[in-house]
Amino acid sequence: MNMVDIILKKKAGQSLTREEIHYFVEGAAKGTVPDYQLSALLMAICFQGMDAEETTTLTMEMMHSGSVVDLSGIGEICVDKHSTGGVGDTTTLVLVPLVAACGVKVAKISGRGLGHTGGTLDKLESIPGCTIDMDEERFIRQVQQVGCAVIGQTKELCPADKALYALRDVTGTVGSIPLIASSIVSKKLASGAGAIVLDVKTGSGALMHTVEDSVRLARTMVAIGKRAGKPIYAVVTGMQQPLGTHIGNALEVKEAIDLLSGRARGDLLTVSIGLGARMLMAAGKAESLENAEAMLQEALASGRGLAKLKEMIAAQGGDARVCDDVTLLPQAAERVRVRAPGDGWVCGMDTTAIGYCAQDLGAGRRTKADRIDPAVGIVMQARLGQYVKAGETLAELYVNKRDGVEEIARRLTEAIRIGETKPEAAPLFYASIGPWDV
Amino acid sequence: MNMVDIILKKKAGQSLTREEIHYFVEGAAKGTVPDYQLSALLMAICFQGMDAEETTTLTMEMMHSGSVVDLSGIGEICVDKHSTGGVGDTTTLVLVPLVAACGVKVAKISGRGLGHTGGTLDKLESIPGCTIDMDEERFIRQVQQVGCAVIGQTKELCPADKALYALRDVTGTVGSIPLIASSIVSKKLASGAGAIVLDVKTGSGALMHTVEDSVRLARTMVAIGKRAGKPIYAVVTGMQQPLGTHIGNALEVKEAIDLLSGRARGDLLTVSIGLGARMLMAAGKAESLENAEAMLQEALASGRGLAKLKEMIAAQGGDARVCDDVTLLPQAAERVRVRAPGDGWVCGMDTTAIGYCAQDLGAGRRTKADRIDPAVGIVMQARLGQYVKAGETLAELYVNKRDGVEEIARRLTEAIRIGETKPEAAPLFYASIGPWDV
Repeated sequence: MNMVDIILKKKAGQSLTREEIHYFVEGAAKGTVPDYQLSALLMAICFQGMDAEETTTLTMEMMHSGSVVDLSGIGEICVDKHSTGGVGDTTTLVLVPLVAACGVKVAKISGRGLGHTGGTLDKLESIPGCTIDMDEERFIRQVQQVGCAVIGQTKELCPADKALYALRDVTGTVGSIPLIASSIVSKKLASGAGAIVLDVKTGSGALMHTVEDSVRLARTMVAIGKRAGKPIYAVVTGMQQPLGTHIGNALEVKEAIDLLSGRARGDLLTVSIGLGARMLMAAGKAESLENAEAMLQEALASGRGLAKLKEMIAAQGGDARVCDDVTLLPQAAERVRVRAPGDGWVCGMDTTAIGYCAQDLGAGRRTKADRIDPAVGIVMQARLGQYVKAGETLAELYVNKRDGVEEIARRLTEAIRIGETKPEAAPLFYASIGPWDV
Repeated sequence: MNMVDIILKKKAGQSLTREEIHYFVEGAAKGTVPDYQLSALLMAICFQGMDAEETTTLTMEMMHSGSVVDLSGIGEICVDKHSTGGVGDTTTLVLVPLVAACGVKVAKISGRGLGHTGGTLDKLESIPGCTIDMDEERFIRQVQQVGCAVIGQTKELCPADKALYALRDVTGTVGSIPLIASSIVSKKLASGAGAIVLDVKTGSGALMHTVEDSVRLARTMVAIGKRAGKPIYAVVTGMQQPLGTHIGNALEVKEAIDLLSGRARGDLLTVSIGLGARMLMAAGKAESLENAEAMLQEALASGRGLAKLKEMIAAQGGDARVCDDVTLLPQAAERVRVRAPGDGWVCGMDTTAIGYCAQDLGAGRRTKADRIDPAVGIVMQARLGQYVKAGETLAELYVNKRDGVEEIARRLTEAIRIGETKPEAAPLFYASIGPWDV
């Protein structure tokens, strides 16, 4: 097998064989194929693409390049969910207990990664005592007994994806649908998922800028699942504004609790129910989306969802009383109001910029070494399509360090566009793709 | 300046600025841009191309990435010639003395490189005593006094091209017209050429497989010259068979002497005169190709060409008597005839395979460390379109080591296709491009 031949074949637009894909994936994982050859191939893939068979093969080869978590001990299919990343997007903490309360096992292994705000692991760790570090045996036992668990990686999953992802990041080869799709799905499969629900965000701040590309990515991932024999469902959702109203780690836990206790509603709940319903479908627990959504609404209304979150927090060593008293979560020292500079309609938000404001308050990491402050963040009051008057509160910053707060408040004001005409409402769900659609 | 932005810009099909091209060329020369980023950019260039301005900028930036030979001391424009590589192609040894005999200075600096057969430097070194190593001062003096000199590189020319070429070779990014064109022209300009004539070979064994691509490459190089203010002329010539009849170092010197002394004629002379005529044009010495060819024919017929070769050899320390007595050149111990296996028309030749036969006899290098045997090689008797009878000599191997000769003879027989129908004559010149054509 010769790497130059593989590059030339893809450059010419031909499909690579399983052996050829295995060769470069193994080479990436083991470092036996030099980076300059891998990056040339990645660029050729950006231009020539990969067909469904190649993309599936790439996914499976990356999945098997390292450890694969064996969840067969749980005895039931485990459903996982992945989002391509958003701001104020704490769907995991809302839907995991709801889905588990409906009798579907959720064994979620998350990576930590960088981002505008912390990830699910950081959010859980903001709950006093709660751990996301546990061995596989305890993890499996918790899923069996409680029905759900969310933990950090213990083994090296998908080292080939890790190597290729790092290379893509520095060689301008991130934006390729087969590369993105195989990267996401391989990690979910390696972490033991038997069925997967994917939330592909669309919009200017998202990985995919256009709805068309987002739908293509979603279809590609669903098609991988079909070929790999794992049910995958995907939705394409909008990121025109932060999904929930709370941005920041403890703040997002609080919002999840508020939703599960019935004190609040909104887009975050709507998307969580939508994703959760597909998880029930993927697990074979519901026959239709309507049926699945009704089950989840019942779990919500009856309080069984909140009870399941308590159980999970307690099982992971956390103080479950936060579910009854959210003031037990870390609290910021100070709140700073951000006010509307004039009258008008909230007609646009720069969601990414809002995420960076939260990061700069201390809610997210810029580098791996950064420590997160669990208490800080932003609570949005303005929503798209709302009419505000000058001086009215658009958002509140939850602050522990005063340094630079004025500057962050100024950026946040700029990130919320106020105009003279009421904006058209953008849909929350753009597309829904199931195995029968591909 | 950020390399990822440069890659993404080219990936999106946009033109790079001078600053961006300077950044990656300097990075390639100095090793400050990692290979994996360079190879991603090279692959993006393969797909998106470069416009005339970018290609010229790339050429000039590569030219200035190392030393540039200053031939201004010669006081006249020096013309150089480059061929994209062929078998039995010793045009340099024929045209350099003819052009110099017509009063145009030829200061030629050759790289050594690998190939089916030795390069011009190896051919010259097969002449007893002849050196191709001299300092710039002596080189310039020889060009002033004799009118021509052919030497090896003394300084590091175009280190950026060297780095990029090595990377292209192992990343499947050789076949890109702007990359090939800038590589060739930058080296010629760095070696001090004031005007350049380029011979682009076309056909299955050549760098460019199709006539269309060869013409595109030729036009691109002529256009670089026009933008860079240096006259460049190009021809596209066929490589359906070895250009001359002699393949091997001393054998090719002998053929050049045979042609210059009027004892032989043929395609090699025709192409040498064609290229030489464009060198006279490029130097402003002739007003038309007809005029230029007549001047060269006169230099040939009068013996002034051969006399100039003698002068050059003597100036470079060689035994100029070889021009009167070719048996003073290194002689092979033995000749082995390769005979026609049956009656028929010589209707096809695998020129590359013939080149490899000569290489395997010892006439060329497989690796940089290989030593060349100046005496060995092949003299072809068969030409395309000729009728041969079974047992008739197709070629003679000039051999010093008997080991493996039968195998080489067998491969040579296979490389000469004999068929039942007379082939159509293929043209020697496919296209001629001058500065007014681009």
